[in-house]
Amino acid sequence: MRGPNLEVVMSSSFHPPVRTLMGPGPSDVSPRVLAASARPTIGHLDPLFVGLMDDVKRLLQYAFQTSNELTIPLSAPGSAGMEAAFVNLLECGDKVIVCQNGVFGGRMKENVERCGATAAMVMDRWGDPVDPEKLEAAIKEHPDAKVVAFVHAETSTGVRSDAETLCRLAKDAGMLVIVDAVTSLVGIELKADEWGADVVYSGTQKCLSGLPGISPITFSDAAVSAISARTQKVQSWFLDMNLIMGYWGEGAKRSYHHTAPVNAVYAIHEALLMLEEEGLEASIARHKANHLKLAAGLSKLGLELAVDEAWRLPQLNAVRIPEGVDDATVRSRLLNEFDLEVGAGLGELAGKQWRIGLMGSSSNDVNINRCLSALEAVLGS
Amino acid sequence: MRGPNLEVVMSSSFHPPVRTLMGPGPSDVSPRVLAASARPTIGHLDPLFVGLMDDVKRLLQYAFQTSNELTIPLSAPGSAGMEAAFVNLLECGDKVIVCQNGVFGGRMKENVERCGATAAMVMDRWGDPVDPEKLEAAIKEHPDAKVVAFVHAETSTGVRSDAETLCRLAKDAGMLVIVDAVTSLVGIELKADEWGADVVYSGTQKCLSGLPGISPITFSDAAVSAISARTQKVQSWFLDMNLIMGYWGEGAKRSYHHTAPVNAVYAIHEALLMLEEEGLEASIARHKANHLKLAAGLSKLGLELAVDEAWRLPQLNAVRIPEGVDDATVRSRLLNEFDLEVGAGLGELAGKQWRIGLMGSSSNDVNINRCLSALEAVLGS
Repeated sequence: MRGPNLEVVMSSSFHPPVRTLMGPGPSDVSPRVLAASARPTIGHLDPLFVGLMDDVKRLLQYAFQTSNELTIPLSAPGSAGMEAAFVNLLECGDKVIVCQNGVFGGRMKENVERCGATAAMVMDRWGDPVDPEKLEAAIKEHPDAKVVAFVHAETSTGVRSDAETLCRLAKDAGMLVIVDAVTSLVGIELKADEWGADVVYSGTQKCLSGLPGISPITFSDAAVSAISARTQKVQSWFLDMNLIMGYWGEGAKRSYHHTAPVNAVYAIHEALLMLEEEGLEASIARHKANHLKLAAGLSKLGLELAVDEAWRLPQLNAVRIPEGVDDATVRSRLLNEFDLEVGAGLGELAGKQWRIGLMGSSSNDVNINRCLSALEAVLGS
Repeated sequence: MRGPNLEVVMSSSFHPPVRTLMGPGPSDVSPRVLAASARPTIGHLDPLFVGLMDDVKRLLQYAFQTSNELTIPLSAPGSAGMEAAFVNLLECGDKVIVCQNGVFGGRMKENVERCGATAAMVMDRWGDPVDPEKLEAAIKEHPDAKVVAFVHAETSTGVRSDAETLCRLAKDAGMLVIVDAVTSLVGIELKADEWGADVVYSGTQKCLSGLPGISPITFSDAAVSAISARTQKVQSWFLDMNLIMGYWGEGAKRSYHHTAPVNAVYAIHEALLMLEEEGLEASIARHKANHLKLAAGLSKLGLELAVDEAWRLPQLNAVRIPEGVDDATVRSRLLNEFDLEVGAGLGELAGKQWRIGLMGSSSNDVNINRCLSALEAVLGS
């Protein structure tokens, strides 16, 4: 073993190139959001910051389409949002019906089991949506399940599932519903209250185009009641909503829990303001229209989308890698010659698909043209 | 219940004032760090970002004075760093000796218990350091304990404990040691390898003066072995070092775990470069010298430091609130009239003490003079 690193080696400041981010996230961050994030740091208990927190909560309610009081930006990435959903709702011995049709449903199962709960799995093929009939059958088979969990927009496959129907099936059976909206939020329709979702979490680095690192999350009154009625403590101190409510709660004196990532909250606030200015419906329409443009262009290049038209995510396009084309070479050339990032396939789709993101600030004409011409150049040469 | 928040209310961009941050953190963030954080976001799997990660690891090794391979900036605040230490080292049924002399020792106990482990407490008065003789007695009483945990610099009281001696006692007994260095890192001497600490975690918003939200953490080879030898899965998926090692590991293909907070990593990198330029010893000497200046000035104003001279933290000065002075009024006037934040007392010290931070970029002459003159004005009027 070498000795401790006591020496001064001196490297220099990091100056990243300007990449075009068309992978599964992070998406392009607007200069307006970057500028907001670089404003002077103030204290996390400063009354001005507390005011900002209230505005962020209001804007997140708009994004989630909810009146849930407990709607906050969690101080960690989307995978911590997922964990917060499960550790707060579940106690040891509980049963959860988990729908899996890609990587992130599998991660849900991991989370359930690490809570000492059991997961009854509803399995669908990677690339297909969650089948509501299978969920219905699972609910009949497991009437004792406390929670149903599924991924609205599977980031690993580019597939949308019918969240409205899945939520309804769970609610009709009196079960709580956890919805992973990491990639769906503000990119496709999502109505937390109308659909009856109890916990919905997302990430800032997808269709919101805030800085990566924060997980917006919302809890329904029924979810809050379930958390308050727990007999066991939440196994994570950091993610215990009973404690976090004391910091993000309405009106009352905010009590210290942890130091909020102040500048990241500036960034998400600015990104949410941009959403408010554009309007949620307009944002969703833009994602749809740009997806159609990209799809038409890909088709002209002879490239095929992997997902059935009815279930394609406009913000994340799964493209079949043509026979004889080397995945890594193409992505590496796109990055090095065109400063363009597209996503690799994940899990069992590695080497078989690319994932081309048109999320948030990345969803625009310039990016579509850049991507199509770069692909044409690389695949044609 | 009002309906979902569907309306557009339109607020405006947040423009914080320039505060002088002399509380328990966040500390002043240098314009250089803010500028770095606002550089264009690139992908978290981009080869250039992977290179940056390597440099951040190297610089963190310098800050911690360690050669530990597993030395990374965790993608969440210091309290998640604490949780990562406990959930990775502990399995259900383990015993931990926790030394408590303030708020954060109590938080350690919470973490231990939420892991299904038991905490044998070594209690000292708030405002005193951890007593090594009490730890020695506890080790004799609990030879079956797996871990000893303590806080190097208690942020709630401004007290340093003798980390070197406490580590030695634990190592001599063959126990692993967890050291909370949230407030100590680069503000006072800390030698992870020489002292034999197994897990040391910190925060970016204290003496490093990076942006708040990240927790630098390091694991010794013995800690990594203990994690690898676990028979139970780590209860937190997000904080499972077995998985995180796959993303931050050396050389090999980085595997996706979660999306790193890219811009926050830019910020911590720049803050660490500034540390390297100044030099670790010079940073520690600056914190010491500025503490002495502040202490002399406070004494002239008739204000007393609450902690015995031998155990005072130079970076966090606990000041007794004089009889008849209203805590909240003074802090509110300092903030509103002087844009100066000082910290309130925490827990049982609320209303009895202020905590005046001289951490990282906040530790400078201008701030000391500003603080002393503001205190003089407010207390004298």
